[in-house]
Amino acid sequence: MSRLPERVDPVRRRLLKAALAGGGLLASGGLAWGLCARAEGRDFRPERAADVLSRVTPLAPGEPAPNIVLIVADDLGYGDLSCYGSTAIETPTLDGLAAQGARLTGFYACAPLCSPSRAALLSGRYSIRTHVTVPLYPTWSPHELFMNVAGARPYGVSGIPEDEVLLPELLKARGYRTGLVGKWHLGDRSPHLPNENGFDLFFGAYYSNSTKPYAIYRNQEVAIPAPADQDVLTQQLTAEAVDFITANRGRPFFLTYAQPFPHEPLHASTQARGRSIGGLYGDVVQEIDWSVGRVLSTLDDLGLSENTIVIFTSDNGPWWQGDPGGMRGRKNLPFEGGYRVPFIARWPGVVPAEQVIDGPSMNFDVFPTLLAAAGVAVPDDRAIDGYDMRPLLRGEVDRLHDTLYYYKWHRLLGVRQGDWKYLRRHMTDNGGYASLRQGPFLFNLATDPTESYSLLESEPAVAAELEATAAAWDDQMDRNVRGWKDGL
Amino acid sequence: MSRLPERVDPVRRRLLKAALAGGGLLASGGLAWGLCARAEGRDFRPERAADVLSRVTPLAPGEPAPNIVLIVADDLGYGDLSCYGSTAIETPTLDGLAAQGARLTGFYACAPLCSPSRAALLSGRYSIRTHVTVPLYPTWSPHELFMNVAGARPYGVSGIPEDEVLLPELLKARGYRTGLVGKWHLGDRSPHLPNENGFDLFFGAYYSNSTKPYAIYRNQEVAIPAPADQDVLTQQLTAEAVDFITANRGRPFFLTYAQPFPHEPLHASTQARGRSIGGLYGDVVQEIDWSVGRVLSTLDDLGLSENTIVIFTSDNGPWWQGDPGGMRGRKNLPFEGGYRVPFIARWPGVVPAEQVIDGPSMNFDVFPTLLAAAGVAVPDDRAIDGYDMRPLLRGEVDRLHDTLYYYKWHRLLGVRQGDWKYLRRHMTDNGGYASLRQGPFLFNLATDPTESYSLLESEPAVAAELEATAAAWDDQMDRNVRGWKDGL
Repeated sequence: MSRLPERVDPVRRRLLKAALAGGGLLASGGLAWGLCARAEGRDFRPERAADVLSRVTPLAPGEPAPNIVLIVADDLGYGDLSCYGSTAIETPTLDGLAAQGARLTGFYACAPLCSPSRAALLSGRYSIRTHVTVPLYPTWSPHELFMNVAGARPYGVSGIPEDEVLLPELLKARGYRTGLVGKWHLGDRSPHLPNENGFDLFFGAYYSNSTKPYAIYRNQEVAIPAPADQDVLTQQLTAEAVDFITANRGRPFFLTYAQPFPHEPLHASTQARGRSIGGLYGDVVQEIDWSVGRVLSTLDDLGLSENTIVIFTSDNGPWWQGDPGGMRGRKNLPFEGGYRVPFIARWPGVVPAEQVIDGPSMNFDVFPTLLAAAGVAVPDDRAIDGYDMRPLLRGEVDRLHDTLYYYKWHRLLGVRQGDWKYLRRHMTDNGGYASLRQGPFLFNLATDPTESYSLLESEPAVAAELEATAAAWDDQMDRNVRGWKDGL
Repeated sequence: MSRLPERVDPVRRRLLKAALAGGGLLASGGLAWGLCARAEGRDFRPERAADVLSRVTPLAPGEPAPNIVLIVADDLGYGDLSCYGSTAIETPTLDGLAAQGARLTGFYACAPLCSPSRAALLSGRYSIRTHVTVPLYPTWSPHELFMNVAGARPYGVSGIPEDEVLLPELLKARGYRTGLVGKWHLGDRSPHLPNENGFDLFFGAYYSNSTKPYAIYRNQEVAIPAPADQDVLTQQLTAEAVDFITANRGRPFFLTYAQPFPHEPLHASTQARGRSIGGLYGDVVQEIDWSVGRVLSTLDDLGLSENTIVIFTSDNGPWWQGDPGGMRGRKNLPFEGGYRVPFIARWPGVVPAEQVIDGPSMNFDVFPTLLAAAGVAVPDDRAIDGYDMRPLLRGEVDRLHDTLYYYKWHRLLGVRQGDWKYLRRHMTDNGGYASLRQGPFLFNLATDPTESYSLLESEPAVAAELEATAAAWDDQMDRNVRGWKDGL
């Protein structure tokens, strides 16, 4: 405190000191409060995971099984691909992929934030069930402390719980070679590491590319010390993805290619820079398109394309840059722009070409879909919130869910049923103070796709029904948030 | 503190008490800090206003002069009128008004907030020159205290300064009857009251309709005690506007009809409710359209339409509801959705019908435009930032300004030159914490109308030039923020 600028006069110095002291007290109290809360709400059953995995039937020798390439971009907005309407960014590879399969216009991430969205994607369950409800940072980092102070960690987990059964674990038990290239973001310590959660290979980072220290790991060893040069990262990850596919061309494989971009800070190779009228962000997305092209041409070259499911999506809406495609909101918000993301699936023999699907689905649907593709039953000892997407992807049904829920952290903020979307409240999207929350709101996404006009006053019965639906869901979650089926 | 819920355990109670005490200390320090700052930065010259007004030449008997009706909605979004693309709200009257004159697609408020935007509109100057840079609340109200604590009042004014010369003052000196029906929001105490600032008639409220106590005044007397029934407010204001026009049909008049809606809380009459698929917000906007229709039909009935300029606009972008028309941001933010608003002008004999004008202009341009229409010279003792809009409205030029500046409070956040928009930083629009400001950003509004992709890296020279422009402007403002021309 003795290094306050000299130009600050003595009266103000004293006031500032008092204010800072007050702030410190506030922070300490909040920290202690947050730490107290960490012990609550857990219901861990570590024996369950091994039990579920023991019941997976391994592939018989020569038994056919499709390969799977699941590509997940980070913070890519709904409107950032040319096949989703971008005029500033050109993504010919992804446009072509969409033309060979299905492009979804009603696909949601399961959370408007990285870690919880990825937890849902790999577990088939609402993030709150996995207790990974906020982005993860290194233990004792300022971010992590802040999250505790802010009350964001009521369940206190620092990674995906051991008793969650993830897609790579089930596919590995089935006999797949499993690889994760890119971002993990579900824990940086045992037992939360990728190799401990079903991935034979891990090459990538534990965190978002904005988190320091940012090192690249090969399995549990540092391959590129922090700070990794992110300019060449997409090239390195692409090479690793190609190598993984090539090395495993003779057996079923599951590759999750979790692209670290266009999460900020933005980086692209010298070859990719300066090519897009969408600036560096556009260059980055176009390099992702190039990278996907390298993966697809590898599949082609190895004769694997006909037997490989390729899925491309994003973990949540755009952050500081990026285009939510005309929808309201961005990453971190329960509006459509925070939740709705591109989803492209090429699945020869199952999904016809040129499908554009409007019906809503959510990223936990990927879990049962890919398990079904691989001939693995979904775990029956716990609630699985996703459904097999194949009927939707083939255009046989117009929706998979009667009800979808929107969470921010561990709080249930909204419900969608049909075209109705009910938001209990929303965090501000206008630079106001977070305490100035407003709501509830009732939107009709058919007549009001930008969530501009609440119909709470004109449709009170609809709002009341959706509030009751939300309350009942919350109540059920309060009683058994982990979704254990205890009769089993 | 003794009324903390009983379910909170003793340890947490103590922690919470400590945290609240810390918060109180923080607030006190900040308040004192803010109050210290109030004394700074003023340069008031009360003698100037009388001098400027004394030099206005009154209309000679029988000298022709157009009537003026200036209608300003509150928080109406760019996309909230059917002539601006709304499919949820029907505004046939305003659509018709636009068809009879000009509709601007590049019109900006001068601030993304009520009071500063109105100060600019009526003074012809950037809000910072008038020192009205934040919304005004009753003295000692929690909001007002908060604004001080937050450092939002570096100039310490509680209303429009006496030395500002407002449009109604100049028109009154010219011989117009001047009336303000609706919201004032430029001060609630002498010498800041409407009657002291050029309006012969005031019927309306000092504040936003969300501010308590919300009373309706006729001049300086309470006409409708707080809390005024806002359901019938648009009807009451409409009747008052019609009465003012009718009473003054025989002489030049200037009516500012400052609609208090669709600022929240939303209210509409029973006749207007339930008519729009845009919910209560839509009903409110459609009642405004009805109200404008009553004003226009009064002009028609009295044979005044041919000699009356009618302008319709809004003070800033939409708040919690309302549609920014596909642009990024809302009220309170420096993105286009916070700043760009509808602007319709019907001006028989001067503005041809069916004009749609893209070139940028800002609400301080209304001041010199209407003064020119009334034959009054703009004040020459101070900087006037606006320009006469007639060449733009007639399609003779494609822009009025080489450079436009975006402020939030007293801080210069951005610059627009041509299609380039440079933002030094922005307040968060994604529910994050205000401290997580990002920037600078460089957007090209032609290729990227949604401000999604910064071109800072690919066009560093443009960004540097615009930063230099901003810095030079800030520097000039630091030296003479009031814009006094001291040679005079």
